[in-house]
Amino acid sequence: MNQVEIGRAKSARAAYSFDDISVVPTRRTRDPEDVSTSWSIDAYKFELPVVAAPMDSAMSPATVIALGKLGGLGVLDLEGLWTRYEDPTAQLELIANAKQEDSTAVLQRAYSAAIKPELITERLAEIRAAGVTVAGALSPQRTAELSAVVLKAGVEMFVIRGNTVSAEHVSKTVEPLNLKEFIYQLDVPVMVGGAVTYTAALHLMRTGAAGVLVGFGGGAASSTRKVLGIHAPMATAVADVAAARRDYMDESGGRYVHVIADGGLGTSGDIAKAIACGADAVMLGTVLARAAEAPGRGWHWGQEAVSKQLPRGARVRVGTHAPLENILLGPADAPDGHANLIGALKRSMATTGYSDVKEFQRVDIILNPHD
Amino acid sequence: MNQVEIGRAKSARAAYSFDDISVVPTRRTRDPEDVSTSWSIDAYKFELPVVAAPMDSAMSPATVIALGKLGGLGVLDLEGLWTRYEDPTAQLELIANAKQEDSTAVLQRAYSAAIKPELITERLAEIRAAGVTVAGALSPQRTAELSAVVLKAGVEMFVIRGNTVSAEHVSKTVEPLNLKEFIYQLDVPVMVGGAVTYTAALHLMRTGAAGVLVGFGGGAASSTRKVLGIHAPMATAVADVAAARRDYMDESGGRYVHVIADGGLGTSGDIAKAIACGADAVMLGTVLARAAEAPGRGWHWGQEAVSKQLPRGARVRVGTHAPLENILLGPADAPDGHANLIGALKRSMATTGYSDVKEFQRVDIILNPHD
Amino acid sequence: MNQVEIGRAKSARAAYSFDDISVVPTRRTRDPEDVSTSWSIDAYKFELPVVAAPMDSAMSPATVIALGKLGGLGVLDLEGLWTRYEDPTAQLELIANAKQEDSTAVLQRAYSAAIKPELITERLAEIRAAGVTVAGALSPQRTAELSAVVLKAGVEMFVIRGNTVSAEHVSKTVEPLNLKEFIYQLDVPVMVGGAVTYTAALHLMRTGAAGVLVGFGGGAASSTRKVLGIHAPMATAVADVAAARRDYMDESGGRYVHVIADGGLGTSGDIAKAIACGADAVMLGTVLARAAEAPGRGWHWGQEAVSKQLPRGARVRVGTHAPLENILLGPADAPDGHANLIGALKRSMATTGYSDVKEFQRVDIILNPHD
Amino acid sequence: MNQVEIGRAKSARAAYSFDDISVVPTRRTRDPEDVSTSWSIDAYKFELPVVAAPMDSAMSPATVIALGKLGGLGVLDLEGLWTRYEDPTAQLELIANAKQEDSTAVLQRAYSAAIKPELITERLAEIRAAGVTVAGALSPQRTAELSAVVLKAGVEMFVIRGNTVSAEHVSKTVEPLNLKEFIYQLDVPVMVGGAVTYTAALHLMRTGAAGVLVGFGGGAASSTRKVLGIHAPMATAVADVAAARRDYMDESGGRYVHVIADGGLGTSGDIAKAIACGADAVMLGTVLARAAEAPGRGWHWGQEAVSKQLPRGARVRVGTHAPLENILLGPADAPDGHANLIGALKRSMATTGYSDVKEFQRVDIILNPHD
Repeated sequence: MNQVEIGRAKSARAAYSFDDISVVPTRRTRDPEDVSTSWSIDAYKFELPVVAAPMDSAMSPATVIALGKLGGLGVLDLEGLWTRYEDPTAQLELIANAKQEDSTAVLQRAYSAAIKPELITERLAEIRAAGVTVAGALSPQRTAELSAVVLKAGVEMFVIRGNTVSAEHVSKTVEPLNLKEFIYQLDVPVMVGGAVTYTAALHLMRTGAAGVLVGFGGGAASSTRKVLGIHAPMATAVADVAAARRDYMDESGGRYVHVIADGGLGTSGDIAKAIACGADAVMLGTVLARAAEAPGRGWHWGQEAVSKQLPRGARVRVGTHAPLENILLGPADAPDGHANLIGALKRSMATTGYSDVKEFQRVDIILNPHD
Repeated sequence: MNQVEIGRAKSARAAYSFDDISVVPTRRTRDPEDVSTSWSIDAYKFELPVVAAPMDSAMSPATVIALGKLGGLGVLDLEGLWTRYEDPTAQLELIANAKQEDSTAVLQRAYSAAIKPELITERLAEIRAAGVTVAGALSPQRTAELSAVVLKAGVEMFVIRGNTVSAEHVSKTVEPLNLKEFIYQLDVPVMVGGAVTYTAALHLMRTGAAGVLVGFGGGAASSTRKVLGIHAPMATAVADVAAARRDYMDESGGRYVHVIADGGLGTSGDIAKAIACGADAVMLGTVLARAAEAPGRGWHWGQEAVSKQLPRGARVRVGTHAPLENILLGPADAPDGHANLIGALKRSMATTGYSDVKEFQRVDIILNPHD
Repeated sequence: MNQVEIGRAKSARAAYSFDDISVVPTRRTRDPEDVSTSWSIDAYKFELPVVAAPMDSAMSPATVIALGKLGGLGVLDLEGLWTRYEDPTAQLELIANAKQEDSTAVLQRAYSAAIKPELITERLAEIRAAGVTVAGALSPQRTAELSAVVLKAGVEMFVIRGNTVSAEHVSKTVEPLNLKEFIYQLDVPVMVGGAVTYTAALHLMRTGAAGVLVGFGGGAASSTRKVLGIHAPMATAVADVAAARRDYMDESGGRYVHVIADGGLGTSGDIAKAIACGADAVMLGTVLARAAEAPGRGWHWGQEAVSKQLPRGARVRVGTHAPLENILLGPADAPDGHANLIGALKRSMATTGYSDVKEFQRVDIILNPHD
Repeated sequence: MNQVEIGRAKSARAAYSFDDISVVPTRRTRDPEDVSTSWSIDAYKFELPVVAAPMDSAMSPATVIALGKLGGLGVLDLEGLWTRYEDPTAQLELIANAKQEDSTAVLQRAYSAAIKPELITERLAEIRAAGVTVAGALSPQRTAELSAVVLKAGVEMFVIRGNTVSAEHVSKTVEPLNLKEFIYQLDVPVMVGGAVTYTAALHLMRTGAAGVLVGFGGGAASSTRKVLGIHAPMATAVADVAAARRDYMDESGGRYVHVIADGGLGTSGDIAKAIACGADAVMLGTVLARAAEAPGRGWHWGQEAVSKQLPRGARVRVGTHAPLENILLGPADAPDGHANLIGALKRSMATTGYSDVKEFQRVDIILNPHD
């Protein structure tokens, strides 16, 4: 378990991020044209192992649809601007145009409007009408309140996403969501997270979830470390949750819960590494917020930036790099890992001799030197 | 013990700072509202596990009182400007306004005035009158000389703080303070340090101290490394002294000596990490010097900066961030870990499923990757 | 095998680059004048253990000849500008003069001209006429198509070089080159690579190759890491392939396959380290592109920068430092490891007491501290 | 032995520099006034464990005398400017005033003048007349040629110093110096080095040397790494040679050979660390070149910068910080470890409870975290 003695009364486990590892070639190579990146969860099959993070800077109903048509799975944040405003364009522009020092306040104002259940219905209908898989996300805090509306609106993939979601939330004041009961009663598959440890993920798997999101659920890693002292490096988290998937498959007599890496994925190389650590698919925020069509207009933010007492993130500039199609399928115009994500993944798999995502989870990796 | 061979004739122990570790979530989460951060030492109970470092840049009688009213423990440096000057305002302004190249000389002049025992009495009386716990600090060098005045002035918590305080100081020229006898004769609880090793701390615990300060006692870490070659990374030091607390509790038949981390605490995340390593409370300097009320006016310095032969620190700019209340209890206006320290600590504890400080000492930690 | 647990379901091997290691002196020293750097492969003997990377920025027919006369082995890229244009001067100037933002497009245009087999014949004839060893390189993709021309043109050393070349390439659409058959039928020795693992290299050795190129075959390391997530630190790769050389020598009853380090060689110190890890010779690109005679005019690029879908490199500025002779044989005018490569190698060998390249493979090395 | 597998065919030993380690306090503290830093070698006793590096930028006859009067041992480079020029002032000014790009050429010209034996005699006479210990240094290459003059001139401590000096130098063209015979015939004690390994140092000890210089003998570490690929981190080197001292004392029946750390000593903290690793004394170059009296006028260089074929160093700016006395004995005016070196060493020893240099070799050290 890689335990290191920090001092006589405390040990720590060595943990690793994607930056610490690399994929290595083996004795075989393969044609990139022969590689498949397709991925299935429940009854749904996707050509790309890409799920969008439900964040207003990346996903509007339009980009949810566009991503679906390109072969991925778009997910709309059902507590975001699109369910608070009939037309959030003005808010998105205010956010994009705010000076950096005003940005937290502008975000707080924009998100202080109430969520309108009828807008949830309307947005999901728009997505279904386009013929792509209908997926929407709620936070665990509001799932009980809003899930009925969401289900009635015909969601096909239900995402419950928070910084840390546990199957065992304790509260003296609020009756917490009983995930197991909730998921049992649902007819649609659920993806739930973030979870970063073997045990937390195993418990989530036992709730009946179809997929577990691995990561600190949209939390900006550097802020979380400074503010909370919490850090869960992604390579270790994904490899731990992949072990939970294997052990849960054994204990459940064969139920395969999908592992979706959610965080620390800034380049196409990171996507390859996430799969190498055991992920079935990746949830992307920043890299999709760089698309020309992204509603964030070159800015990216998460809901934790809106907190009035303890903001743990901020609006950050990511720029506008290329149309969504180029970001996913190329061509890329620079060797920076920001575009043609899937082409790069295919080449990474081909160079190391693998032909599908599940097999590629077995590729050899190295611990990088410290240069 | 993590021994590493440096060369054939010398081994070293691997040591770690707070920056090297992080707290990790577990399978349970909790409501931040259900979390308690209260802390008791001797007969005194505090809502916040926060002790102020006795430094003139952070603590005046007024900020000692303000901190006490917010739930922490303020400590006045009884060898500082407040016991050398009837009104130190002019000196504080000279220090704040000095050019950087003159600052050491200005500090040396300010601290060359004699300590007036009657000012010790007056300052402590002012604090007691405000109804908060009365705590004052002396260096080990002057404890014998000034302690009678301090006790007579009605101190309730006696702090003896130096760079390194041992229970076994050897001198050919001066009769050293016999800590054990001194503490035995006192009626008030004593916090003493800095100590950074298991053995040094165990010996201090055996003197009868109520609390041990873990750290290089106010020494600026980077200067100490360059000038003296000495460094005691805090995560290791706290975890070692926590082991001494446990072993001393066993040997003493149940006396619990409090471990107070004193150094390396620049953000709210560091406070969570210090407790995770075994601290019962933290002694804060820099982060309190950033308060609007801080007498340092945005500057911070320690007494080791005043040394005429061998300055081991300097006046440093920390800026003025927010009122003391916001720094401790929020709201924070930026995700930098400099404000709402207690709100952040509560969220860190809640996210990892803990509800009080003593329990939180058991939280799992990781060794961070080197990115 | 230096395995590190990344997470419960994945382990990684710790790998090292040349920057991570250093050569150390032993108890003996030697005169630099007594040191030999000569190297033989097949029937060819070279005073310098230096092979040029077949890249247009470094090697023209003229620099191939110049390098050969100085004692090394020049290699012409037979799919480069010299076999696409009767006179590539205009193209080289366009590339050198392009603005950085246009450089990828300019490279793509320059390399879109067809390869003319008669130019292969002409260029190799020019090299043979100068009396130096005739060496040319093809990619594995075009070896089948162009090798007949190359052989007929009288090549004496055949180089097959790609990012990753395996003895076992799998393709559903194209009949891959059967390296073993191909090499068996040839009368001339073959150097083939890149290979970065023990197994991949062992398989290449079994094809009958005279030398294996160790490295990611001209891929720009930083881009490859970002775009593909692939990284093969060179010190580990060379030491692994050296073990394959030893084991293959045993299994083959004594056939010695030469190990040529190809990548990560930015300074003369890196050349010493490559040999210390087990290399017989080094393939140099960047350091030769800095020569005054280099066709790149101070710029350096690889063919992977030309890719239209997924560029994994770019034109980079390396500057023009000194004439080729000074770069190899000195004098150097600065202590930066960019010139007098062979003089530095000799001094490194002499200082540590070794007198020839094969012996120097046994020199002690250290893992550098992280400062 | 801390072996790390770099690849299947090569292992490396982990090595450490002074920056990687720190001294740690123990359970005892002591008065700095009670600490002695005195050091004896052969019949000579010095109050300070400080030997000057024989480099023209730091040592003139005048600074040799000044250092001796302050309690250290000054050493004149007998192949430097002071034995090439009746009055080297003009040369020193040319060097100090040269533009950086011309500095190597200016150095080469200055050192191209011939060494005049009569100046060796004159310089050493001047030092003896001042009543301090007379020490001079030659390179191993010229020891045979010039030693008779040096001895006749009345040297009391003979220093033989090169990048790497071995007891077993091999040359086909020049009869190498037989160190053992040479030292046996001498009446004066010899310090010899650099040596960086246990075995090399043990062999030097067996030649009869009174002291071994540990380090790469004046080589600029960063250039040596880039140019030669050689690096010998000082903490490991000193601790290895200290083991050789212990083992040689056993094998010789009690002869104590002094270990003098020579390199990597930029601050007072580094001096404490060198002793903690086992050094009896330190040889200082850079820190003495910062003295107001230093002949380098704020510049520092070594003879390896003069090499015409392969310069492995350069003239570097070190600035002029304080008079020599302040640098050694204080007061310091900044907390940077550049002044009051001995006061800092005494405080470091006192804080950790030690009272003399030999005892302080046993102080505990830690491996620093990577922050």
